[in-house]
Parts: sequence; structure tokens; C-alpha cells
Amino acid sequence: MKCIKCGAEYPAQLLYRCERCGGILDILYDFERIRDRIDFKVIVARRDGMWNYRELLPIEDYSKIVSLGEGGTKLHRCSRLEDKFGIKQLYVKDETRNPTGSFKDRPISVAVTKAKEFGVNTVVTSSSGNAGASLSAYAAKAGITCFVFTPTNVALGPLSQMAVHGARIVTVKGSVSDSFKIAQVVAKKYGWMNVTSTFLCPYATEGDKTVGYEICEQLEWKVPQWILIPIGAGPLLFGSFKGFTELVKFDLIRDLPRMVGIQAEGCAPIVKAFKERTMEVRPWKNPKTIASGISDPLRGYTQDGNLTLKIIRKSKGVAIAVSDEDILDAVKLLAKEGVFAEPTGAVSIAGLRKMIDDKIVDRHDLAVCVVTGHGLKNPNRIMDMLKEPRLVVHGGNGLKRSSIMKILENRGDF
Amino acid sequence: MKCIKCGAEYPAQLLYRCERCGGILDILYDFERIRDRIDFKVIVARRDGMWNYRELLPIEDYSKIVSLGEGGTKLHRCSRLEDKFGIKQLYVKDETRNPTGSFKDRPISVAVTKAKEFGVNTVVTSSSGNAGASLSAYAAKAGITCFVFTPTNVALGPLSQMAVHGARIVTVKGSVSDSFKIAQVVAKKYGWMNVTSTFLCPYATEGDKTVGYEICEQLEWKVPQWILIPIGAGPLLFGSFKGFTELVKFDLIRDLPRMVGIQAEGCAPIVKAFKERTMEVRPWKNPKTIASGISDPLRGYTQDGNLTLKIIRKSKGVAIAVSDEDILDAVKLLAKEGVFAEPTGAVSIAGLRKMIDDKIVDRHDLAVCVVTGHGLKNPNRIMDMLKEPRLVVHGGNGLKRSSIMKILENRGDF
Repeated sequence: MKCIKCGAEYPAQLLYRCERCGGILDILYDFERIRDRIDFKVIVARRDGMWNYRELLPIEDYSKIVSLGEGGTKLHRCSRLEDKFGIKQLYVKDETRNPTGSFKDRPISVAVTKAKEFGVNTVVTSSSGNAGASLSAYAAKAGITCFVFTPTNVALGPLSQMAVHGARIVTVKGSVSDSFKIAQVVAKKYGWMNVTSTFLCPYATEGDKTVGYEICEQLEWKVPQWILIPIGAGPLLFGSFKGFTELVKFDLIRDLPRMVGIQAEGCAPIVKAFKERTMEVRPWKNPKTIASGISDPLRGYTQDGNLTLKIIRKSKGVAIAVSDEDILDAVKLLAKEGVFAEPTGAVSIAGLRKMIDDKIVDRHDLAVCVVTGHGLKNPNRIMDMLKEPRLVVHGGNGLKRSSIMKILENRGDF
Repeated sequence: MKCIKCGAEYPAQLLYRCERCGGILDILYDFERIRDRIDFKVIVARRDGMWNYRELLPIEDYSKIVSLGEGGTKLHRCSRLEDKFGIKQLYVKDETRNPTGSFKDRPISVAVTKAKEFGVNTVVTSSSGNAGASLSAYAAKAGITCFVFTPTNVALGPLSQMAVHGARIVTVKGSVSDSFKIAQVVAKKYGWMNVTSTFLCPYATEGDKTVGYEICEQLEWKVPQWILIPIGAGPLLFGSFKGFTELVKFDLIRDLPRMVGIQAEGCAPIVKAFKERTMEVRPWKNPKTIASGISDPLRGYTQDGNLTLKIIRKSKGVAIAVSDEDILDAVKLLAKEGVFAEPTGAVSIAGLRKMIDDKIVDRHDLAVCVVTGHGLKNPNRIMDMLKEPRLVVHGGNGLKRSSIMKILENRGDF
């Protein structure tokens, strides 16, 4: 492990921040050694989802892997959206297809496996929903006790997942930054492993690398010009980019993609810093957006935002914000491609549309939008959004079939 | 196509019942020809989910395949349930992992592909939820208009899926048998393709075969003693068994598994006929169960039940019923393995438990429970089931961290 800020190095252990300067820790690998040990032909012939790439994940003992079949998610070519947006090649990396319905299963699978390696018996996370749902499922599978600290506005889906998998749920009145702090303090006091999936747990972030690996593999080692990702603190953006840089080290690809971090206009601390050309992200005051998964004011851990901002700049990428209205439009557009995203998940599509309109993305570019979570996480939200679309008729023998057809015809549906 | 009842044969076409006797139609293949054309080493090396087996599906033009990445679902070894139930080898075939969250994506993917081959522009189904949700997604992807006729008690999840994917939803007051009838009449009148996933659309049922193929492949061509499946009319049981019988023709396996059809005590027409040793299933009067996906009285199409019953007997299998209480217990037990099932999906686990208790299943047997749909389909149901598990505390600067820890400690959680 190496501190991103001061460069201090540590052996693999349960450590969340640099002991010298408090900086974010990153996991380093001995690529010279790994290079001799792995064969990408073997890797891509496996059928273990993201664990196909196990040699590139920070695990010592493969027998301890806690997997529910995460990763290996579909990369959809979206021809209808290509036509609509006027772009030649648009793909969706469909992270709704993970076991608990979001990309969080990747970092959590690594973190819970690491928890088993460390012999930890309790894990804890602060989560706005999906990470908590994921941790609850993986901790259940591993037989480990799980605490989830959540803000008040958790959607029904993730809440039901936490409950059914037997997590101990603590609702902290306030934003996700408030629950972040409390989770941190409680974990420290009781010696629990904190797997909060911002940059706090360096092992968790490693799981996000596999999104980068898989996109390249699925495009037959062609590198997209643009990768678009909804960001709160941004570990998925950081992790995916790290995945691409590692593939360069293995000579599988040459170029790197430009990373686009997309936030909601109602909570856009990283976008604000990007526009103001500063290196320092400042906490957002009153987060307000339907994209609850990225409604993160970063209060108390703005260095997480700084790191994501740094990666965006390094990759010659962009940070942009989209409105809640654009996000809901994007949910509907994705649904026409057969993909049902939660609002947070569709933010990448809303962002791409805006970038094409603003002529930042060229129509000849290849863009991949990462869709992070399933629409079934918050069905109420969708039903509120769409006007009541049902026609009600009486069945059974009481009503003649001809009358039913008359009703249908009068409705003018066809 | 061949009539199961009178043996009449027809060329591939849009036909739902035998024109001579009204019997159910089954799809036949020229296995001698197919045998020369396919290589199972090639098939299992593909990465196309259930379409790995495309040569064994009734499609002429592979360029027309409408896929969202269905099939290829995880087969979980469930060691905790093995210990609890006292059985040596228990696997769960996790159909919650399909694109719209249920196994229905398999038959629907085949049916919508066939709709494209036939040049159909409108599809219709009668569905208690999951088939309608699936058809809505695949029809959207294919650019085909979709009508869904549903009973009144559709869960929030599937309803939101139908709505977001742009289906035209008609709620028919009554049971799924009432909406079945109306869908049939309307489809006939307007010339729409009826893909209702009981045995009405023979192409749809073919998709279910792939569950059988995949289970064998995932067990390295070892055949389980028992396959347990929740059944309404039973096309998934019929289809899976057909899949196994085809693998015998290809010399990949020798034996066939015993097929177990499980219903809810509140709606068990097939189980009743099985116990009474009759060949004729009779419609159920007042269906009442939380397992809405299999709450099918079979009124008007009892021959569907007869066919499923015949297959169960032929395979030396069993039909049993479980209580709603057993089903909810099974949801909780599965959640401990990290799998979140809707009540209908967990019925197979409830059934296995009962069969082990009744000493029908031997502890040395290998059993595979098919878990058909995701718990996120009906999160309200789960929240009702579990007592309010949340602890609420105040975050921010207003409350001292030490007080929060005191609250946690007083709760006696650790």
C-alpha cells in the first residue's frame, strides 16, 4: 500500500489512511512478477465474472473468495440511442446485472474476501443504499456480522435488501457525510473492518478496476475515446482508470480513455472545482437531487474528490453536471434499449447526451456509459415519474369479450 | 411443430394450438442434422448466455436475435443450507440474475426473436408480473409494440418495469386465468403475436430448455437426482426436462433427473391431481398465496397442467405443496446465502426442505433448486415480513459521537 499524497509505503494490512499524512492509500502490485505468472488467454477463457482477473486483485488466498457471481456484465451496443444522439458507437456497461443490482458488488466482493483473509468478524459501511445492500448480501454469504449506517433517504429496494440479508441498519439523520463520520468512529472503537466504498477501504476500490478490464476485453482490446461514469466521491472512476492503466502495462492496450465524471446539478462539488480550475474540491452545502446514489456532499473527505478530479484531468477528461429532468429523460431512453436503470445509474447517459449537444464528444467517437444500478431499486420513483399508464377492465364471465375489445378500441391505442 | 395430444405435425408458423384437436404444440428438431453441425466444445466456450445453445433453439436467422444477456446464470453451491437441511449437495440455479430479474427472460427472448422473424409488429401476453415485465423490455429493445394483460395483484416491481419500458398495460379484474382469456381473444382479433408463457406459445417454452442445458454444463455433465421448480402451469419444468432429454440424445449425459413441481398450498391444482393419482388436473377455485407468480388456477387451460403432471410422473418425480409460512422462511434462508428471492422464487427451497424432512430426498442426493425471480420485484412484501429493523440516530454536529456509541451499546447488538 502506498500513500497517494506523500508516497509512504506500508505492507498489506487493515489501514484506511496514511499514518504519516492522512492521505488516501492505493494498492501497488509487483507487475514484473505478475507478468510471468499470468496469461490473458487463460484469464479471458475463465467463467468467473470479475474474478477472471483474480491475479490482479489484492487477494492472497483464492480459497477465501466470497463471490455471488459479480462482474462479467453485459456491454450493450445501443443502436437506437446512437441514432437519437447522432453518435457512431455507443455502448452501455450494464452494471445493473450484478447480484445485488449495482456495481458495488465488485468492490464489496473484494473487501469481504479481504475481511475473511484478515479474520475479521464484523464489517461496517456508510452507504446511501447500494453499497449497504451489497455488503449485507456478501457478509451474509461469508457469515460475517454487518452494520450499515445510512442517511435518511434510502430507497425501498436497498433497504429491503439490507433487512432480508440480516444487516444491522442504523439510520443517521442527515446526509451520507454524517453517516460516514459515525461509521468511521464506531469501526475504530470496536475494531470492525470499515469497507465504506469511497476511498476509505483501499481493497474495495481495487474491485472497481475490473470494470476497466472488462470494457476493453469486450471491445476486443479496443480503447473507447470516452468512459462516462456517475460520480459521488468517484472511486468507480478512479478504479476503472486504474484498470486501463494496468492493461497498458501488460501491452494489451496502448492508449487511455478520457474519463468523464458526471454529477447531478443539485450536488456537484467535483464539477464545480473542475469548472473553477482549482485542485481543491469544497464540500457541497445542500445536496438535492433524485440521483441519491451520488448525492454526496463530501463533507469531511474532500480529498476523495480531489483524487477523482486529478484522475479526470490526467486522462484529459471532463466533469459535467446534469439536471434531474435530464436524468429522468435518460432513464426513459435507456428503457427503450431494454435496460432499466435507477436515476443515479442513468446519469452517464444524460451526461453523454449533453456532451454531444455541446460538441465535446465527436460523433465518430466511441463512448461507453457505465450504468451503475437497477431501476428495481426504487420502483416508486419510476411510478411517480410516469403518468398512471394502466387501463382497468373487468374479467371473468361478467363482461363480454366484445365489450373489452370495444374499450380497447375506444382508447385509441392502435 | 407436433401436437402433444394427437401427433399432428405442422411446419414452423404462428400457431398456438393443434388445428385438429386443440392440443399443445411442441417444437421438434432434426437431431441427426443438428448433431453434425454442432460441437459442444464450441458451444460451452461461447459467452452468449443462453444463446450459447442457439443451434438448439427454434431460430432461423441468428442476426435477428433479440438479447439483453439472458441466461448463463450462476449456479450457487449452498453449503450453509446443506448443513441446515442435512443434505450433501445443494445447488441454487439463480434465475434472479436475468436482465429483468426472472427466468422469463429466456422464453421471452426466444419469442420476441421469433416475432421479428415472423415480421410481427405487436406482441401480447397475459402475465401475473414477471413475463409481462420481461416482454416489455424485450419488445422495447426490438422496437415492437407490447400489450400486457395482468390480474389485479401485480407487484410494484414488475409493474414499474412494464411502465418504464413503454408497455400498454391492461389490468383485468380477476385471476391470471381471466387475463389469459382476454389476451387470447384480443390477440386473435388483431392478429398480434401471443407470447403468453404458459404452453400457448411453443417458441417461448423452448427458451426454458436452456435451464436444463446450463445446469448439466455447470455440473460438468453430472446429472442431479432432483430438480426442484416452482410451478403455476409448469412450462419451466416441461422445458428444463426437455433440455435434459436432448442432452441424452447428444450422449452428453445418460440419466435423467427427477422433476419436482412445487406449488403453494393456496393454489395447488397440479399437486392435488398428483396426490389423487389422476391424469386430469382440475381448475383451482380460490387461489390465495403470497407466491403470486404461481397463483394460477389454470381455469380454461387445464391441459397445460396435465402436460406438466405427465412430465413429473414420467421423470419419476413428485408434486408437492408448501405453505406461505414455509415460503417466507425459505426467503430468509436463501438470503443467508446472499440470494434475495421473491416469495415465488423461494418456493423450490421450501419444497426441498419438506422433501428432506419427509425422507423423500436422501441426504446423499444432489439437488438443484431453481430460484425463479428477484426479491427486488416486491420489496414491500419483504419489509412487511421483517420487523422494522432500523435504529435511528441523529448525525451531524448536534450529537456527540460518544452518545451514538452509547445508544448502540445499550441496544445489545454486540
